[in-house]
Order: sequence, then structure tokens, then C-alpha cells
Amino acid sequence: MRVEAKTNEEAAKSCDIAILAVPDLPTPDFLAALAPVLREKLVISPIVPLVIKDGVFALASSEESAAERVAKALPGARVASAFQTVPSPMLSRLSAELDYDVLVTADSKQVYQEAAKLVSSIGKLRPLYAGPLSVSRVVEAITPAILNATRYNKLGSPSIKLV
Amino acid sequence: MRVEAKTNEEAAKSCDIAILAVPDLPTPDFLAALAPVLREKLVISPIVPLVIKDGVFALASSEESAAERVAKALPGARVASAFQTVPSPMLSRLSAELDYDVLVTADSKQVYQEAAKLVSSIGKLRPLYAGPLSVSRVVEAITPAILNATRYNKLGSPSIKLV
Repeated sequence: MRVEAKTNEEAAKSCDIAILAVPDLPTPDFLAALAPVLREKLVISPIVPLVIKDGVFALASSEESAAERVAKALPGARVASAFQTVPSPMLSRLSAELDYDVLVTADSKQVYQEAAKLVSSIGKLRPLYAGPLSVSRVVEAITPAILNATRYNKLGSPSIKLV
Repeated sequence: MRVEAKTNEEAAKSCDIAILAVPDLPTPDFLAALAPVLREKLVISPIVPLVIKDGVFALASSEESAAERVAKALPGARVASAFQTVPSPMLSRLSAELDYDVLVTADSKQVYQEAAKLVSSIGKLRPLYAGPLSVSRVVEAITPAILNATRYNKLGSPSIKLV
């Protein structure tokens, strides 16, 4: 794998697929700056708007998923959500034999299929279509649920499987 | 197992542990009627306030979990949430060798431990403490995520495991 350091704008310009690996929902300015270069590209949102509330992980209040907000801010981009539940330490070790289920949302079946192909290319990840981008809201909620359980039960960096 | 038909109030009076196996958040009247007889008892909320929105499963809007609302309506009861992600066809076949992870929330460690004991007594279910009743909100959200994936991918009646 080739790794290069670039500005976000340079990276967005040269990529075919952009994964918004940012710790929280980007600001509208950040996305607006990238919107022109991400047009027509596949953009994956693994974003989970986490907050700590009364000492536990929760989801920031919103009627919309982070993925829907990304799609609105990037007109013309083909946006899917995926990887919310895959712990970042695992995603940064792509050699690890990742064997999880990855719920994928997208507003069109074609965009889903492109995202699913990417998911399938990593370890033993199994993509599962979960519906349109609005469904990403409940998928994003799985992350704070897992993080709380992980912390109280000292579980390492778990992800999920549907069994 | 002994199965008897009773009114909700009779059942609440004679039980040691009450599992509120109702399809949606009960009305305040329903809970108020049971509150006196459920005082000091262990009450488990597996409730997920599901809605269908634009043709997909979602969680009814609320800042609070169903479990928190149950606890407020049942003063003096020892309320925990559990089983939200265990499909009802599986829970009704208690002979099935259920082998899932069950996230459990409760506002005290003692109530958690009582609920965990019940979870552990069923098949190979593994209870995992996920935090106070407020965390049940994100646990409840896992159910519509699974239901959507189940429907689009024809998965049967899956539950989850943290792996």
C-alpha cells in the first residue's frame, strides 16, 4: 500500500474513493471546500457524532444521520456510510484479518454496490445493506453502545457480527 | 416451565421479576396501574420504541431511552434494560441454544447483577454491562439497524455478538 501525506483538498482531488476518516462530523466549511473535487466520486462516511454525557458515550442529538448531513454538504458525490462499528485501531492495521459484519447505507443500490465492493476487499468483512442514508442514524448509535460495553467489560477493540 | 394466563396486574403481583414484553413503550396509565405492585421488584425493559419512517425501521424520537421512561413511571422498582436485540421468535423458544451478547443497562451495579444473572440463565447468552439506563437509548437503536439489515439481506432472526 502506498501512503502519502497530502492536504485534504489534494487528497480529495487525486482519489477515486474518499473515506472521511475524521473523528467527528466535519464543519460545513470543511465539507464545502472539498465539495467541488468530490463531485461524482464515491465518498464513504464512517462518522459517528459521539459525545460524552454524564460520563458515558452517547450520540449527539440530531434527527439526521451524519451520513445524510455529509451527503447534503457534498452535492453530486456518491455518498455511502460504512465502517462506523469497525474500531479505528483495526482499520489502521489492514493486514489484520478483520472478520466483522459492516452495515452499509446508501440512497441508491448502485452506490451501495460500489461501497460493498470496497468493504469486501478488506479482510473478511461482510457488507450488509441496511437501507438509505437515514438508517445510518441507528447504525451510528451502535458505536457508543459498543464503546460503553467495551469500557465496562475490558473487551479490547470489538466490532459486531450478526449471528 | 409453568405458563399461566393472568391479567397484567395479577402477573405483576405474583412475580419476582417482571419482563415488560410489550411491543412498544407502554402508556403512562398502563405503567401507573402496575407501579404499586412492582415496587421493590426487578423489572426488565426489552422495549424498543420502533417506528417505520419512509419505509424503513427507525427509533421514535426521544432524548430518553424507553428504559429511563419505564423507570420514571415505576418508582421504587429496580429497573434494568436487556434483550432489546434478541429476536422475539428466539426468546419465545427458550429451549433454543441462544448464543448472543446481551447489553444490559441499569442505574446501579446491584440491579445490573440481578439482571445479568437472569440473562446468564438462558442458553449461552452473555450479559455485558453497558452503563446506566440512559445508555439504553443507543442499545435500543441497534434493533432497527439489525431489522433493516435482516430484511434487505434475508438473514432470518439474527442477534449480535461482539467479536
